[in-house]
Amino acid sequence: MLSEIIAVGSELLTPYRQDTNSLFLTEQLNNLGVRVIFKTIVGDRRPHLVQAARQALERTDIVIVMGGLGPTEDDLTRESVASAIGVSIKRDTELLTTLYKRFAERRITMPENNAKQSDVIEGAEILLNAQGTAPGQWLDIVFGGHRKLLMLLPGPPAEMKAMFTNECLPRLRSILPERHIAYRVLKMALLPESQVDARLAPIYTRYKDVETTILAVTHPGEIQLHLLCAKPTQAVAQARVNELASKIEEEMDELIYSAQNETLEQIALYYLEMRGATLAVAESCTGGLLSQRLTSVSGSSRSFLGGAIVYSNALKTDFADVPEELIEEHGAVSAAVAEALANGIRRRTQATFGIGITGIAGPTGGSEEKPVGLVYIALSDGQRTDVVERRFTGDRERVRWWATQLALDMIRRKLM
Amino acid sequence: MLSEIIAVGSELLTPYRQDTNSLFLTEQLNNLGVRVIFKTIVGDRRPHLVQAARQALERTDIVIVMGGLGPTEDDLTRESVASAIGVSIKRDTELLTTLYKRFAERRITMPENNAKQSDVIEGAEILLNAQGTAPGQWLDIVFGGHRKLLMLLPGPPAEMKAMFTNECLPRLRSILPERHIAYRVLKMALLPESQVDARLAPIYTRYKDVETTILAVTHPGEIQLHLLCAKPTQAVAQARVNELASKIEEEMDELIYSAQNETLEQIALYYLEMRGATLAVAESCTGGLLSQRLTSVSGSSRSFLGGAIVYSNALKTDFADVPEELIEEHGAVSAAVAEALANGIRRRTQATFGIGITGIAGPTGGSEEKPVGLVYIALSDGQRTDVVERRFTGDRERVRWWATQLALDMIRRKLM
Repeated sequence: MLSEIIAVGSELLTPYRQDTNSLFLTEQLNNLGVRVIFKTIVGDRRPHLVQAARQALERTDIVIVMGGLGPTEDDLTRESVASAIGVSIKRDTELLTTLYKRFAERRITMPENNAKQSDVIEGAEILLNAQGTAPGQWLDIVFGGHRKLLMLLPGPPAEMKAMFTNECLPRLRSILPERHIAYRVLKMALLPESQVDARLAPIYTRYKDVETTILAVTHPGEIQLHLLCAKPTQAVAQARVNELASKIEEEMDELIYSAQNETLEQIALYYLEMRGATLAVAESCTGGLLSQRLTSVSGSSRSFLGGAIVYSNALKTDFADVPEELIEEHGAVSAAVAEALANGIRRRTQATFGIGITGIAGPTGGSEEKPVGLVYIALSDGQRTDVVERRFTGDRERVRWWATQLALDMIRRKLM
Repeated sequence: MLSEIIAVGSELLTPYRQDTNSLFLTEQLNNLGVRVIFKTIVGDRRPHLVQAARQALERTDIVIVMGGLGPTEDDLTRESVASAIGVSIKRDTELLTTLYKRFAERRITMPENNAKQSDVIEGAEILLNAQGTAPGQWLDIVFGGHRKLLMLLPGPPAEMKAMFTNECLPRLRSILPERHIAYRVLKMALLPESQVDARLAPIYTRYKDVETTILAVTHPGEIQLHLLCAKPTQAVAQARVNELASKIEEEMDELIYSAQNETLEQIALYYLEMRGATLAVAESCTGGLLSQRLTSVSGSSRSFLGGAIVYSNALKTDFADVPEELIEEHGAVSAAVAEALANGIRRRTQATFGIGITGIAGPTGGSEEKPVGLVYIALSDGQRTDVVERRFTGDRERVRWWATQLALDMIRRKLM
């Protein structure tokens, strides 16, 4: 089954806004075994809307139109879709009454415009909007001699998602052939996409019935492996995904940090908590990013004590007891200072583990000897301190991100 | 002039990836006086590509097709566009030689596939790709009796942007009527969009020739006002934008933190540096986010000394000299502790200003008396300490963001 998603709204044709609803819908449709072959973004203009709807009905089986269901003059989806399929719209008095009531409950007089939201396309079922005033519409029609499913959904993401989940999904499931989906995400840190693909392609290509997607996602130093399998029963689908997942885990071994879609922060904190251990950090070049990532996890205070942002040399000495002479001798960006930061912050906070990070995030501050991107990360457990030297490439944000990614991974590897 | 942007690539029809190139192109086209009326996203399938290209040529004057110019079998843009306009493609021997040379320079044998990248649509000019191997193509044709401009650009953002800027922009400028654009961005923190609009609509609606867009952007607590004016001369356009900008600045006064598109972090650091002042922070609930935002600005070390992540009570005492009894008496989340954190960290680091933040970011940890979202922020200059109490709504990430936004704004207002 093929589908097209149409996102309606002139604001989606500006440099400032972007349709993101279609990502959610694509995932939902894929899970039902439906492929999205076109996405069209169109402004609030009737002829364009009519054209977009007609095209989509001509080339696909399932058409979802999002947006343009509001009460203003710019909201033209209802009349445009009606015109595209050659039927009329009429005001639904029952729906109108419901709208009036809804406003009355909030002690607001309903603006005349809103009556428009009770216009229903001939032959359409009304889809309830639990989160807003714009009802959706469901059409199961014959167009060009073929059966077509056509849905009108509101544009605001929360309303759209709720309506699709509660109203459209059950209808689609009752029409489309039964299909069970198993899905898993494996995550790896600090590896290039090409290297992951080179090692895994010989494995996953043998599982033609499991759709494998390797993604270098939003942040650098993070690779996600999505495994998806659709079968007539859940057990079979799950078994296939699990079998491929364990082959992959065998190959990549401890390079995989999560097989259940956790973040690297969550994993590091999980290991700390499991061992009853605590952590403190002394960050120079990452300037709080590592702490921020750890504390973005709710409940992180159980293992993360805090730490110091030792941007100035004086604070390296005051908060992490790094001897001034050490900084003078080796320079603030050095393995020795990273080690002293990790040890110092650990002792000062009486944490089980201490991390020290120092480096040159750029774009300025580099030299021939100590170039931009050079970072030292130390992890101390009181007995021994591991220090890693890396030369990261990319801009300031990227260097800082990689450094925190490596620091989190060092904790994980130490404790796993 | 009307335009359509076509983004090519099956990965753009998955739940994982999204076209973002079109935002850049829309801005560029808008600046030339061209409106984007459709965006189409299509997979790597020839019949779909041909259909999309033909449609776009039928309904708009300027068509940009991005992606599908690589060397693999999936890269079908060249042949599909040729077929859409009814011409052939032929291999350009000169271009082929250049490609061979390029690979030879890197001491790599060119894979046979890559020869495909020297296929040129009949009548097309070649657009040089400074950043990759895929050349673009420029067509100035008559289609359906009308003049059409058609550009084929590579998909990777860096390559696409460089090629559009260096190759397409000069060509478009020489064809389209001369137009000068003045553009300004005003930024406000911590105000709701509706309130900004209510105060400013009476002003900006009087400037029909200046396009005003109010955006509640990526992060909560941040409103951007985009002013754009196109006129036959730069001076006239600039004068109109400046006139509206000063009317808006008059109305919003110090609520506007930037009139030149700086970030709030940059502005806070700018004021600190201008006054020769330094800053240190003690963060509890924001867990490093404030430090991270400040240090994301290159050169921040000139005024930001660092600080402490005082997640545990022990660290509040050790790093910011907050008396244990004070925490016991008022609780860690209290105005008194925020004040003590600001004072303590300032004294300890000998900074000009100290900031202390304590609160409950949630989702757990709240109580009736101290609910989730309650945050205290203190700013101390050694003489006096200002403490602000706020109850932010939303999830953990949002509460933390608002808290840092307010802290940065407190610095700005103190120093402006």
